[in-house]
Amino acid sequence: MNAMTSISVAPDVALDSADDLEAALRHIGATRYHNLHPFHGLLHGGKLDKGQVQAWALNRYYYQSTIPIKDAVVISRFRDRATRVEWRHRISDHDGELDSEGGIERWLKLTTGLGLDAGYVESTEGILPATRFAVEAYVHFVRDRSPLEAIASSLTELFAPNLHQERISGMLEHYDFIDPTVMTYFTRRLEQAPRDADFALRYVREHARTPEERRLVCNALIFKTNVLWVQLDALHHAYVDGHIPPGAFVPAGQ
Amino acid sequence: MNAMTSISVAPDVALDSADDLEAALRHIGATRYHNLHPFHGLLHGGKLDKGQVQAWALNRYYYQSTIPIKDAVVISRFRDRATRVEWRHRISDHDGELDSEGGIERWLKLTTGLGLDAGYVESTEGILPATRFAVEAYVHFVRDRSPLEAIASSLTELFAPNLHQERISGMLEHYDFIDPTVMTYFTRRLEQAPRDADFALRYVREHARTPEERRLVCNALIFKTNVLWVQLDALHHAYVDGHIPPGAFVPAGQ
Repeated sequence: MNAMTSISVAPDVALDSADDLEAALRHIGATRYHNLHPFHGLLHGGKLDKGQVQAWALNRYYYQSTIPIKDAVVISRFRDRATRVEWRHRISDHDGELDSEGGIERWLKLTTGLGLDAGYVESTEGILPATRFAVEAYVHFVRDRSPLEAIASSLTELFAPNLHQERISGMLEHYDFIDPTVMTYFTRRLEQAPRDADFALRYVREHARTPEERRLVCNALIFKTNVLWVQLDALHHAYVDGHIPPGAFVPAGQ
Repeated sequence: MNAMTSISVAPDVALDSADDLEAALRHIGATRYHNLHPFHGLLHGGKLDKGQVQAWALNRYYYQSTIPIKDAVVISRFRDRATRVEWRHRISDHDGELDSEGGIERWLKLTTGLGLDAGYVESTEGILPATRFAVEAYVHFVRDRSPLEAIASSLTELFAPNLHQERISGMLEHYDFIDPTVMTYFTRRLEQAPRDADFALRYVREHARTPEERRLVCNALIFKTNVLWVQLDALHHAYVDGHIPPGAFVPAGQ
């Protein structure tokens, strides 16, 4: 069993330096990030119908709207003021201000543009139970694990810009029910994610000082890739293979 | 949207008495319990191969081995000594004593009888991430919600005996790699579950005193049916439809 498992890097991965760590993290991204999931191939390649894209956006809203809660928990883990100050903009990136929009409102533009009622989306009553469990696992993780692991679990942002770029062009090209004004969430994240990822990568390179700590950092990233992968598996099972669980959103006409 | 959602009973369900509550709970069981999941039809009807039954038993081990942890959290929520005393046997039902087996060891007999290495099973390194998230959601639920909801989430036991009886006869009849000695977990639960379910049902009938409290009890049971359903959806997607996520158990010969 000398290989990466569902929750751990392989026991023989070299983790003797910050460069070793970064190489291991990039390998995890290259093999486990959700750009590799078949559902994304369908989404970006124009292979889904409007109801399936609605289901994706509806479920993903729960993830988006939980991110500032997750980041508030991360901040709460640090007595070090400088880290709290550095992390704080993540909350406003998603929550905006009372008179200006943030990432959550941008996501609601997408769901509304897709024809979903905003009240229904915000109620989260129709999301897949697996979406809820995966997203809540992320909040619990940053609360219950070490502060180092809490920061490490954000490292999927290293791999997000390529995915967002592919999504913007793919969805605009293939779906006539998508126009550029509803895609502002992703265009904005193209600027935000790299800045955030750079900080988190520098942080773990500096603060993971032993092979065992570097292993925890790797496993935190694996955990996070699972949070993302499980959401797409659940969407694929429900809305591509047709096994919608009881009480979840049913696209119009089904 | 006047119907049961993925997380809530319908807003117009009558919950004005203990009898109303019990009727609503039995309706949730009749429509959401995982005996209705297609994966159980395949499992009990002899339609799975040995690798698929291994995957089910391997993943379900994580659920079984987490139950005494969940029950310890439930006990920790009660200042009332009588409730703690009543709940305590659930831990020993699963953990046994140092010199006599409990439910977890009985489950390991099943996985070992299926040819899985006990160390691999106990490591939980090969389970599906969705299994982990669903099971951990159960522990978080009984920690974070009210004590009344913590007890209510155990009410799926009302519906377990029929399922266990069907499983014992179906699996013994259809699979030559299953013999009665590895099925002792289920035969034992035929005695334990009804006793436990009777207590929990009496408890919620007595302690949920308003329609709003009865609604919380119903939604706790819906939550728990989701914990069980998500596990089977994930097994079905991975091992029936063939989408095994990165790092998870791969049956021999695949």
